Amino acid sequence: MTQNPNTPLLDTVHYPADLKNIDDKLLPELAAELRAEMIDAVSRTGGHLGAGLGVVELTIAIHKVFDTPHDRVIFDVGHQCYPHKILTGRRDRIRTLRQENGLSGFTKRAESEYDDFGAGHSSTSISAGLGMAVASQLQDTKRNVISVIGDGAMSAGMAFEALNNAGALDARLIVILNDNDMSIAPPTGAMSAYLARMASGRTYMGFRDFGKKLTAYLGKNVDRAITRAVEHARGYVTGGTMFEELGFYHIGPIDGHNLDHLLPVLRNVRDNGDGPVLIHVVTQKGKGYAPAEAASDKYHGVSKFDVVTGTQAKAKPNAPSYTAVFGETLAQEASLDDKIVAITAAMPGGTGVDKFAKVHPTRTFDVGIAEQHAVTFAAGMATEGMKPFCAIYSTFLQRGYDQVVHDVAIQKLPVRFPIDRAGFVGADGATHAGSFDTAYLACLPGFVVMAAADEAELKHMVRTAVAYDEGPISFRYPRGEGVGVEMPERGQILEIGKGRIMREGSKVALLSFGTRLAECQVAAEDLNAAGLSTTVADARFAKPLDHDLIRQLARHHEVLITIEEGSIGGFGSHVLQFLANEGLLDGGLRVRSMVMPDIFMDHASPDAMYARAGLDRKGIVDTVFKALNPENRAEAQVTVLKP
Amino acid sequence: MTQNPNTPLLDTVHYPADLKNIDDKLLPELAAELRAEMIDAVSRTGGHLGAGLGVVELTIAIHKVFDTPHDRVIFDVGHQCYPHKILTGRRDRIRTLRQENGLSGFTKRAESEYDDFGAGHSSTSISAGLGMAVASQLQDTKRNVISVIGDGAMSAGMAFEALNNAGALDARLIVILNDNDMSIAPPTGAMSAYLARMASGRTYMGFRDFGKKLTAYLGKNVDRAITRAVEHARGYVTGGTMFEELGFYHIGPIDGHNLDHLLPVLRNVRDNGDGPVLIHVVTQKGKGYAPAEAASDKYHGVSKFDVVTGTQAKAKPNAPSYTAVFGETLAQEASLDDKIVAITAAMPGGTGVDKFAKVHPTRTFDVGIAEQHAVTFAAGMATEGMKPFCAIYSTFLQRGYDQVVHDVAIQKLPVRFPIDRAGFVGADGATHAGSFDTAYLACLPGFVVMAAADEAELKHMVRTAVAYDEGPISFRYPRGEGVGVEMPERGQILEIGKGRIMREGSKVALLSFGTRLAECQVAAEDLNAAGLSTTVADARFAKPLDHDLIRQLARHHEVLITIEEGSIGGFGSHVLQFLANEGLLDGGLRVRSMVMPDIFMDHASPDAMYARAGLDRKGIVDTVFKALNPENRAEAQVTVLKP
Repeated sequence: MTQNPNTPLLDTVHYPADLKNIDDKLLPELAAELRAEMIDAVSRTGGHLGAGLGVVELTIAIHKVFDTPHDRVIFDVGHQCYPHKILTGRRDRIRTLRQENGLSGFTKRAESEYDDFGAGHSSTSISAGLGMAVASQLQDTKRNVISVIGDGAMSAGMAFEALNNAGALDARLIVILNDNDMSIAPPTGAMSAYLARMASGRTYMGFRDFGKKLTAYLGKNVDRAITRAVEHARGYVTGGTMFEELGFYHIGPIDGHNLDHLLPVLRNVRDNGDGPVLIHVVTQKGKGYAPAEAASDKYHGVSKFDVVTGTQAKAKPNAPSYTAVFGETLAQEASLDDKIVAITAAMPGGTGVDKFAKVHPTRTFDVGIAEQHAVTFAAGMATEGMKPFCAIYSTFLQRGYDQVVHDVAIQKLPVRFPIDRAGFVGADGATHAGSFDTAYLACLPGFVVMAAADEAELKHMVRTAVAYDEGPISFRYPRGEGVGVEMPERGQILEIGKGRIMREGSKVALLSFGTRLAECQVAAEDLNAAGLSTTVADARFAKPLDHDLIRQLARHHEVLITIEEGSIGGFGSHVLQFLANEGLLDGGLRVRSMVMPDIFMDHASPDAMYARAGLDRKGIVDTVFKALNPENRAEAQVTVLKP
Repeated sequence: MTQNPNTPLLDTVHYPADLKNIDDKLLPELAAELRAEMIDAVSRTGGHLGAGLGVVELTIAIHKVFDTPHDRVIFDVGHQCYPHKILTGRRDRIRTLRQENGLSGFTKRAESEYDDFGAGHSSTSISAGLGMAVASQLQDTKRNVISVIGDGAMSAGMAFEALNNAGALDARLIVILNDNDMSIAPPTGAMSAYLARMASGRTYMGFRDFGKKLTAYLGKNVDRAITRAVEHARGYVTGGTMFEELGFYHIGPIDGHNLDHLLPVLRNVRDNGDGPVLIHVVTQKGKGYAPAEAASDKYHGVSKFDVVTGTQAKAKPNAPSYTAVFGETLAQEASLDDKIVAITAAMPGGTGVDKFAKVHPTRTFDVGIAEQHAVTFAAGMATEGMKPFCAIYSTFLQRGYDQVVHDVAIQKLPVRFPIDRAGFVGADGATHAGSFDTAYLACLPGFVVMAAADEAELKHMVRTAVAYDEGPISFRYPRGEGVGVEMPERGQILEIGKGRIMREGSKVALLSFGTRLAECQVAAEDLNAAGLSTTVADARFAKPLDHDLIRQLARHHEVLITIEEGSIGGFGSHVLQFLANEGLLDGGLRVRSMVMPDIFMDHASPDAMYARAGLDRKGIVDTVFKALNPENRAEAQVTVLKP
C-alpha cells in the first residue's frame, strides 16, 4: 500500500473552525493538498471522484467564509461531498468511504452535524434549503443557508419548483449553481444549453464588475424593486435573466477554481443583502487530476485505481451485467421492430441505453434528470403506436410515480418499464436501494409486473415486453452481474401471468419472484438433504399472479414460502391476499413471506446485505425450519447452521 | 326544469368538421351559443365552470384551424374541456357530465377519439404532446400537436422538464399557454408573477407585430439559428425571454377572447415553421358569465346552480367536512404551538389550509402546483425543529413520492402528512381516487400510517401528529362529510400503534382501518342477528400494527376480516404478513382481506362505488358468510341478501 500524500497544511485542519486561522493566500496550497488526499482516498476505496475534485476550492471557500454548522450547507446529490467530509472531522475515516460501517458516499445527517441534509437523488437542495431558510426566518435564528447544485440537477422539475417558490417567498437563500456542463453524462436539455451560452459567451465576471453590481443590489436605502428595475434598464444584469425573472439576484459566472474571486463574492453575499441569490460558478469536473479532466464521464464513479496511471482496477466479470444484457437485447429487438424507442433520464450508461443508442441513435431519447417527464413523454409516444422502453432505476422511478399511475396505468398505455437496480445496491446504500417498486407498481390495476431470475430470463422479458401491447408492463432486475447461465440467441415471449416450476418436491414449496431463485435452489438442496422434499418455483409475474401455480403449491405442500428482494406490500402480499381470499389458508397451510427487512439498510457488500436481510440460503432454510417447528425456534436454528 | 338555450348555429355543429363550413365572422356568435350551452349544462350537473368558459374562443379556434383528430390536442388538467366535448360529438350527453355512466369531467381517451390524452392531474400536457410530436416525426405522419396549458400548471416541475426537453429536441410542438392568472386559487410562484408582468406591461400583440415577427421566424431559406440570433439582436423578442432561452419561439401575449387575433396566429403557426412554439394567450376565467367572472375561485368547481342568480344549490351538511375539521383543528393546535406550519400545493381551499391561514397567515405556505418541492421544503423545515403539516390529497401525493421516501423517510424527519381525499372521490373519478397511499407509504421503514374512522378520530390524529416528533407520520381521511359523531373540545394524543375494540364478540372479527368502521358496525349487527357473535375493531394504525390486538383477534375468532378503503398492498397486506410470519395462520384461521377492487373505477356516486367495490354492509356480511362456507357460495349469497 502506498503512503498517504504529504499534506502539512491540511494536517492542521480538523474542523472548519481551523480554516479561520489560515491566511487566504495559503488556501490554494490547502486546495492542492485536499485534492491529493481525496485522490488517494478514492484510489483505495473507489467512489465518486470527478464531482468532488471540481468543488475543492468551492468547499474550502464556503467553510472559510461561512460559520458552519450554524450556517447550513446542502450539497445537491451529495456525491461531491468528499472534500467537505475531509474538512468536517471525518478525515480519519475517509479511507472507509462506501465500505461496510464506513463513511457514506453521500451526505448523511446521522453521520455529522455538518451534513445538514442527506442526499443521493438529485435536485433536492433548493427545496430543503428554502425550508431551512424559512424556518430560520420564523425562528429568527439568523442563519445563512447555502444550496450547492450542479447544472445537470437543474433540469429536474423539482429544482424549478423550488426556484419558483423561493423567488416568490423572498427568503434569504444562497444558491450556488456549480456549472461544469456535466452531470454524469453530458446534459442534453435546453437549460444546460442556456447555461453554456452564458458561461461561454463572456469572460468571467471580475471583482470590479461584481462590486458595481453589488452596489446596486445592496443599496440599503433604495427600494428593492426600483433597484432591480434600474439594473434591468442599465443592462447590469449580466446574463442570468431567467433566474432574475424568477426573483433571484444572479451573480456570475465566476471562476470556481479561483479563490481570489470566490472568497470576496461569498463574503459580500454573506454580509449584505436579503432575498434569494444565485451565484453561478463555473468549475471543471475532475479538476486537478489529469485522467479525470480528460474523461470526466469515466471518472464520475470509479473503482479502485492507480493514482499515477489512472488505471481502474475492475474485476473481471464472470457473467455479463444485467444492464448490458438489457441494452444489447433491446437493441437486437429494435433492429426487428422499428416502433421500439428507448428513453433514459440522464443515465444512458447506467441503464444500458447507451448500447441501444449506438445502434439506434434516432430512437434514443435522453431527457435529462427528468423522470416525471420521461414517463409521460413515453406515454405520449405510446398513444401513437410506438413501443417506448422507459429505462429508469427502481429508486428513481419513484420520481415519476404519479405519471406512472395517472398517465400510463389509468390510460392502459403500453409503456415498458425496464427497472434496473432492483433490490440491494451495495455501496450506494439506502438512497439507491430498489426496495419499493413491486409494492408501488403491483397495486396498480392492469399493470403487468415481472422480475427476472437471471440474465436469460431478462432477455425473455425484454422480448415479452416488446410483444405485449395491451397495457403497461415492467420487469425488474438487479445491479451487477448475471449468474452465468447460458444465453439464448434471442429471447422468448413468455406467457403473461405464468410462472415455472424448477424442481418438484412434496413437503416444502419455495416460490421466488426474481433474483433470489438461485438461493432457493441451493436452499432446496439443503432441505432435501435434511429429508424435506422441496419444490422450487419461479413466479416470474407478481401481476397477474399465476393462480394455478399458487393453488397447486398451496394444496400439495405443507409449507409455502415466498421470497423476493423487495419490501412488504409486493409479491408476497399479493400471494397472501390471493391465498386468503380463495380460502387456501383455511386448512392451515404454513405460509411465510420473505421480504427485505423493514429498515433502510446502510451501504455494505451485497452478500453482507443479503445475510443481514435473511434473504440467502441460510435465511431460507431457517425460515422453513421455523415454519415447521414454530414452537421451537432455537432448535431449528441449530439445525440450519449445518449447510 | 328550464329549457335548453336557443342555439341555432351551434345546432349545426356536431363535429369539428362542421366548423369548416362556418364563416369566421360568425364564430363569435357560435362562441356565445357555446357558452350559453355550457353554462346551462353545468348549472344542472355541477362541475368545473370557470375554466371552460375561459377557453370557449380558443377551443373553437383550435378546432376550426386544425384538422382534429388527425392533429392532436391535449388539454392540460382537462377541466376546461367541456366546450371541446360539446364540439366533438358529445353535446347530446353533455348534461350527463360527472354522473354515473355519463361523460367524464376530464378528457378521457376511452370516451372519444378527440380526447388524445386523458387528464385530471395538471401539467402533463407538454410531456405527452412532445411524445406525440416525436412519434409523428419518427413515423412521418405530419401531424400538428397542440398542448393547451394554464399558467398555474406551469409552476409544476414536470412542465418545466418538458419545456426543457422540447427546446432541446426541436420537435414540432405547439404549446398554448392559457394565461388567466389563476389556477384554482390565485397562483403564488415567481413564474406567475413573471407572466403577469409580461401580460400587463404591454398591450396585446397585434397582428401586424405578429406578422413582422413571423416573417423573421419563418424565413425558410435562412438558417434557423441565424434567424433566431438576429431576432434577439433586433429586440424582436417581445417578452418571453425565458421560453425563448429554453428553445421555444414565443408568440404573444395575444387576447384569447378575440377570434380576429387567435385565428390568423393559429393559421400561421399551422402553415409555417418548425420546432417548438409557445403561444401566450391571455384569457379570463369564467368569461361571459358575470358571477363567475366576479369570483373565479368560487366558480372553479360548482354544484348545480341557478343560471340567473348564480346561486349554487349546496345541500345542507349533516356533519362538518373532514377538510374543515382538519383545517380548524390544526389552527387550534397551532395557537398552542408556534412550531406548527402548514404547507399546501395550490389547494388552500381543498385541503382546509385556508382555515389555518386565516388564523396563522405567516405560518402558511402555498408553494403552487409543486408537490415534489412541497414535501422536501417541509423536510427542510423539519430539520430546523419546525412541525410541518404537508397537506396534499392522496392522489397528488404520488407526485411527491420520491421526496417522501428519500428526503423524509430515509432521514426519519418528522414531517406530518394529512392525506385528504383518501378512498373513493365520487364525481372526480379514477384520476382523483385516493387508492394507493396506504400501500406506498406503509412499505416505508419508520413511517407511522394512520387512518381516521370518523371526524373525532381525525381531530385526535391531528393532535397525535403534533405530539409525535420521532419521524414521519401520516393520517388519511375521506372526501366529504363526517359521520356526525360528537366532537371533543380538543383532540387526544393517541398511543402510537394501538387500535381499539368497538364491540366484542367471539366468532367473527372485523378489523377496520379508516372510514369503513361505520359499515363494520352495522354489518356486525346483521351478523349478530344471524347468530354470529362479532367483534369490531378499529386498527387506527397500518404502521406500526397493533400486534397485541391482531394476535387477540386471530386467536379468539374463527374468521378475521380486514377492511380498508384502499388498494391491495396496504393495511390488509401488512396484517396478513404479520399473521403469516407469526404462525398465526398455521391453525387454519379463516382470514380475508377486503380492499378496493383492482380496477380504475369510473366516476359515480360514492354509495354506488362502495356497493360496486363490495366495501359496504352487504359486502362485509357476504364476505363473512363466504368465509364460513367457502364450498357453497351460491347459498351463502342468498343468505346475506336478507339484511
